Amino acid sequence: MNIDDIRAANACLEGHVRRTPLLTSSFLDDIAGRRVFVKPECLQHTGSFKFRGAWNAISKLSDAQRKQGVIAFSSGNHAQGIAMAASAAGAPSVIVMPSDAPRQKIDNTRALGGEVVLYDRAGEDRDQIGAQLASERGLTLIKPFDNFDVIAGQGTVGLEIATQARAMGIEKTAVLVPCGGGGLTSGIALALEADAPGFRVHPVEPEGFDDVARSLQSGRIERNPRLSGSICDAIITPSPGDLTFPILKRLCGSGLSVPDEDCLRAMSAAFNRLKIVIEPGAAVALAAALFHADQIEGDTVIAVVSGGNVDGPVFAGALTRFA
Amino acid sequence: MNIDDIRAANACLEGHVRRTPLLTSSFLDDIAGRRVFVKPECLQHTGSFKFRGAWNAISKLSDAQRKQGVIAFSSGNHAQGIAMAASAAGAPSVIVMPSDAPRQKIDNTRALGGEVVLYDRAGEDRDQIGAQLASERGLTLIKPFDNFDVIAGQGTVGLEIATQARAMGIEKTAVLVPCGGGGLTSGIALALEADAPGFRVHPVEPEGFDDVARSLQSGRIERNPRLSGSICDAIITPSPGDLTFPILKRLCGSGLSVPDEDCLRAMSAAFNRLKIVIEPGAAVALAAALFHADQIEGDTVIAVVSGGNVDGPVFAGALTRFA
Repeated sequence: MNIDDIRAANACLEGHVRRTPLLTSSFLDDIAGRRVFVKPECLQHTGSFKFRGAWNAISKLSDAQRKQGVIAFSSGNHAQGIAMAASAAGAPSVIVMPSDAPRQKIDNTRALGGEVVLYDRAGEDRDQIGAQLASERGLTLIKPFDNFDVIAGQGTVGLEIATQARAMGIEKTAVLVPCGGGGLTSGIALALEADAPGFRVHPVEPEGFDDVARSLQSGRIERNPRLSGSICDAIITPSPGDLTFPILKRLCGSGLSVPDEDCLRAMSAAFNRLKIVIEPGAAVALAAALFHADQIEGDTVIAVVSGGNVDGPVFAGALTRFA
Repeated sequence: MNIDDIRAANACLEGHVRRTPLLTSSFLDDIAGRRVFVKPECLQHTGSFKFRGAWNAISKLSDAQRKQGVIAFSSGNHAQGIAMAASAAGAPSVIVMPSDAPRQKIDNTRALGGEVVLYDRAGEDRDQIGAQLASERGLTLIKPFDNFDVIAGQGTVGLEIATQARAMGIEKTAVLVPCGGGGLTSGIALALEADAPGFRVHPVEPEGFDDVARSLQSGRIERNPRLSGSICDAIITPSPGDLTFPILKRLCGSGLSVPDEDCLRAMSAAFNRLKIVIEPGAAVALAAALFHADQIEGDTVIAVVSGGNVDGPVFAGALTRFA
């Protein structure tokens, strides 16, 4: 895949995606000691960037495939992105979710038009359930990041950043991106390679779950020793993807990682200074920009905020703790 | 003043103002029973629409006036808008604030470059202090709403709404606007009269502080019996302005009013569904759109959110109470 795929995705998203602005605050500049620009994909449909990749992937299906429907595994943002994009395209969608997923996420996915199939995380095999459903009903599986159409869709965030940053006179900057499987990060990196070659992308992960940073360092796919124990659950994946890692390896600078507590501080700072709602995993890049300034070069940083789907009590807790 | 003043203000704001998007959520549509569009001026510089009018008013000063500086009375959003716009224009700004104003608002105004002069609400006369300072130092007073350049600046919100709504195929709709002195509401009404004549503006106020609604009904300026006792403090003014009221009277539909509690519910709904932060007074229009649907005609409503400068504990309380 290449930049043409991202440009095609961008044309396909026109009129459907929400073009998010690039936000600033002199108060955040002061904390970071450099100019800070924030790309708030929490303002995207369904509250995360995932809608972009979902829309593009579904739009690439044949009429017959679309009529049969799509299937996705997700307890979170990918589920909602797929459900909404599929509904808009007139495609049925089946979302396989663990039965212990938060009630609200299950309800939201259903309300967006997804058929939710629950499975028991302990006793059932998700992949087997999914494969059986897909084969019985002729559904097309849409993976959350290891899918070129999904990567191209997420890459449209990078095209927007390039255009918006140019209009603001930015020629050289670090671009920090919250990184799970690497779909968003690799898409943005490909877009910026073409449209803003002076920009350098750095993936950001929760401390202790830095599989991507370690993979970039060793040059091959490394895995996380565990998959729970952080509030940043939305971006914790076992390892970078087979499709995303070669792109990350070719284009990204070194990875950063931040402790959970700094994500809560960044959420509170964004509440106070930008008036946006960020979920913990989506706050890692802003947290790095604000509180780990020594790891960033240059006088400018762009931080991508990847989503805002956080429960009220968690958000309220962050505001109370870091007023 | 007329539409040309608003178009000129819009040209003057280009490259300086943040163009805010028009947000939607199917979940909000379901609550309201019609399509809901939200114009989030909480995402504007300094967290409220006030920056628009401040920038335009300051840009209309002569070089000599700008060099001398400006003065404003405000304990809130107008203060921050003036301080930031003045700093950007290289003008000194003096903001007269009550000494019991929240510490954070005083600090923010200072950090944005404003010189804060505190007065004792009980024992000192604000107008006298301001007049003396203005005369001693040759400062130009910029009123928060009764100033045509300010109204023209706020009216640019209306130009954006017209363009964005047209792109979404909206030809006829109610437009609900949080209304204090009427600067924002009259500016938007003037812009829509020219650019979207099928749109009807309705001012929205806190219950018990409906001076504008009563003034529209009686045809002359009515006053509020009291000026405190609502969490919507940012939009409580004694009465509509001498300059704004004739515009409101000519162009607006009837006023709506909502109880404080519905503002908190709307803040929580916007947190969950739009991922934006709204302050109580700025939530009145969305509260009316969502929870007072019987008072609105048609299949579409646009609600303006005028700001997001709310303290963490108040916001956390809204999320906890209306999860």
